[in-house]
Amino acid sequence: MAGDGLASLERLKAALQKLPGIGARSAERLAFHVLRESRESAEMLAAALLAVKDNVRHCSQCFNLTEADPCVICASGTRDAGELWVVEQPKDLMALEATGMVRGVYHVLMGHIAPLEGVEPGDLTIDALISRVKRGGVREVVLATNPTVEGDGTALYIQSALADLGVSVTRPARGLAVGSPLEYASAAMLEAAIRGRVKM
Amino acid sequence: MAGDGLASLERLKAALQKLPGIGARSAERLAFHVLRESRESAEMLAAALLAVKDNVRHCSQCFNLTEADPCVICASGTRDAGELWVVEQPKDLMALEATGMVRGVYHVLMGHIAPLEGVEPGDLTIDALISRVKRGGVREVVLATNPTVEGDGTALYIQSALADLGVSVTRPARGLAVGSPLEYASAAMLEAAIRGRVKM
Repeated sequence: MAGDGLASLERLKAALQKLPGIGARSAERLAFHVLRESRESAEMLAAALLAVKDNVRHCSQCFNLTEADPCVICASGTRDAGELWVVEQPKDLMALEATGMVRGVYHVLMGHIAPLEGVEPGDLTIDALISRVKRGGVREVVLATNPTVEGDGTALYIQSALADLGVSVTRPARGLAVGSPLEYASAAMLEAAIRGRVKM
Repeated sequence: MAGDGLASLERLKAALQKLPGIGARSAERLAFHVLRESRESAEMLAAALLAVKDNVRHCSQCFNLTEADPCVICASGTRDAGELWVVEQPKDLMALEATGMVRGVYHVLMGHIAPLEGVEPGDLTIDALISRVKRGGVREVVLATNPTVEGDGTALYIQSALADLGVSVTRPARGLAVGSPLEYASAAMLEAAIRGRVKM
């Protein structure tokens, strides 16, 4: 293909292949799709790519992704600022937010502590979280990090950092995945469900 | 998501979802990838999208995709211009070209005749093909359309259009797919293999 005078097509395929989950075949299929479609569609996608880089930033208060600062959740007058949900990533925030059940506000850590990968507490937004709690007004901190080794480690670290600040520290319940048969539950999931069994 | 002040992210996800094989989850994953990566990567992809639309056209002689006109195959002095391979799509040309076994040149029909989908012979490049053969210099026309109902129908139509022009009209051999076990061969494939059996 290199010598067939289609350098633009090759460059587009190469750029598409850098995206996650896009292999050589998918990149070719996508490139041919772009070739078939109007220039307007290509312009719309190109502009959307750059607009995201230019417009989306992190909220200076909670570190959620936002175009306005503070973000709409932090700026909202109807959210309970005393209930602070701590998550690892903006995606986790969106998943919680999609339930419509969180009345509080958020704090996005931007990752989890992982010394083997070189991620130390100082690389996350933990200092900002502690300052935020120290400024007052926070009643409960819900550590909604992922139920993984790294997520649990990060939650433990934050729990001890918050120990003397007079706030209630909680975490979401763990157990069987609702709607998923018991036989498919992992050992860890079953263990959490058995340890945490409650009166009916 | 609509009310959360991330219109740019939503627009990028919407633009990505218009691509074939990209659903809501993939679009979100890709959009977050773009957010994480540098602005330079986004610029490279955006520029590649537009460059393809601006630079890639069809060869005026064979209708292959190209950036130069005529394309490198038509312009080459070492190809056998007397052997004309007729294919439906540029992708088919690339597949044949990748074998390195075609010494001739190509003619891309830009589709196949499909009256039910509203594709008539006049919508393809058949007239240009006939003019090309009439101009002389073509010894053999290989109808390498797809081995499908539409491909075969298109080949038959072209065969009759070329009937009085004094060129040899052939098509690639059909039969068992090399390397694929007999038990997995379709009835049509077996039929072609049985009808076309040759002396060993």
